[in-house]
Amino acid sequence: MPASTFTGKLDIHKGVTVSSAEEPCPDVKEFTARLEASLRKWQDAKLRGVWFRVTVNHVQWIPILAQNGFIIHNAYGDTITMCRWIQRDEANRIPNYAHNMVGAGAVVINEKNQVLVVQERYRDRPYWKLPGGYVDPGEDIVYAAQREVLEETNVRTEFESLVTVRHSLEAVFGCSDLYFVVRLRPLTSEITKQDVEIDNAKWMDVDEFLNHPEVHDNNRLFVRKCIENKSNGIMMGRDTTFHPITQKPQALYYITKVSS
Amino acid sequence: MPASTFTGKLDIHKGVTVSSAEEPCPDVKEFTARLEASLRKWQDAKLRGVWFRVTVNHVQWIPILAQNGFIIHNAYGDTITMCRWIQRDEANRIPNYAHNMVGAGAVVINEKNQVLVVQERYRDRPYWKLPGGYVDPGEDIVYAAQREVLEETNVRTEFESLVTVRHSLEAVFGCSDLYFVVRLRPLTSEITKQDVEIDNAKWMDVDEFLNHPEVHDNNRLFVRKCIENKSNGIMMGRDTTFHPITQKPQALYYITKVSS
Repeated sequence: MPASTFTGKLDIHKGVTVSSAEEPCPDVKEFTARLEASLRKWQDAKLRGVWFRVTVNHVQWIPILAQNGFIIHNAYGDTITMCRWIQRDEANRIPNYAHNMVGAGAVVINEKNQVLVVQERYRDRPYWKLPGGYVDPGEDIVYAAQREVLEETNVRTEFESLVTVRHSLEAVFGCSDLYFVVRLRPLTSEITKQDVEIDNAKWMDVDEFLNHPEVHDNNRLFVRKCIENKSNGIMMGRDTTFHPITQKPQALYYITKVSS
Repeated sequence: MPASTFTGKLDIHKGVTVSSAEEPCPDVKEFTARLEASLRKWQDAKLRGVWFRVTVNHVQWIPILAQNGFIIHNAYGDTITMCRWIQRDEANRIPNYAHNMVGAGAVVINEKNQVLVVQERYRDRPYWKLPGGYVDPGEDIVYAAQREVLEETNVRTEFESLVTVRHSLEAVFGCSDLYFVVRLRPLTSEITKQDVEIDNAKWMDVDEFLNHPEVHDNNRLFVRKCIENKSNGIMMGRDTTFHPITQKPQALYYITKVSS
């Protein structure tokens, strides 16, 4: 009797995905036979990418998948995803999983020409820095900057412009690191430190910030660029629309305004 | 006799990392005892984040780690990394792993006011699009755009400016998607299609591209913004320096030039 095969779910890229939660097969010997029969079936059907989503309770699949040419593509929560390109006469066209951390920071300047700054709790020296942090999964970048300002200082803000993008290589977790600095207009002024990670928060005169010994060069540059753009009447604006192909929410950032 | 414990490697954040490759422990019962003794030791030592790097040959550790409060943080190649914040009176401050795909595309316009465009091989309709693709791990964004142009058309280029950043939510692999469009100046003009994924590549009159029925709205916008910036004498330039804290390579993008 030929071994039974996995059903999986087909996708529009001629790929197939098998989930251990939906097609459990705890016996290692049976799994091996079923995998080999499935690979033959999918090769004959001219499929391309084969994906296995394995939950932590079915990890015995993983070394067998590895022996059959699968590599780990990504994993989070309780699921590990492995993949293999099964057409041997074609190059593997599966993109790498995400490998760039993304953060957002804010330049918030009030009508007294003071910039909103914070001191982090866990640090070697008492640096004053712009509020900011990592963008959450599925979160909009500007929303993330506003959320961080609110969490760290309780100041509510609205978007004015994108000031700078920084891309650093060789950052945390072996990833690269993108940091978006946006200018936000304060809608409230009273500071209430919320976040346990923040020791101190205050409005500091912009001139003091630009000359303060305990301010990092990148932060100084972000504020300087912000002021420069404003005095030149130029900004990087933002359009929120929908992606023309996927119809998912998208934000576009580009130079939008030149007033002279 | 008390169970032996893992040694691991301490980091500057009061965290510790154990690698299954360096401290193997194939026996599940022994692993469980050693893990529990280690967690007590690390809690007493006031450590914070505990990390286990598990290779595909030691996956029997994974369900036991999950039972002990560890979650999968990330995984690629042959290694799965799980983590847990062990101080119960503190909130977990371990950032999520990367969850934004990053791509780069190029607007390459020659002296005849023609834009470099390609047709992809795997597609439903014969769209003409700007060359581009995903940024490789550890790769600079502008370098990625230049590499994609070279791979798809064999045209060599140099950086002129950043035109647009697009951030889309709910994209592939459950990630968000960032796309950086840069303007590149062509250094050569002859097109040789290299990439198997590309069916066709050519120089197309900019006006034709802007009015072509088989061009996506985003692509049209990128080229329009590019031309607008040039005629306004404004651009988003790029500085490559080193991060002031980590001393790793960084690229900064901001409005740099206003000529009138």
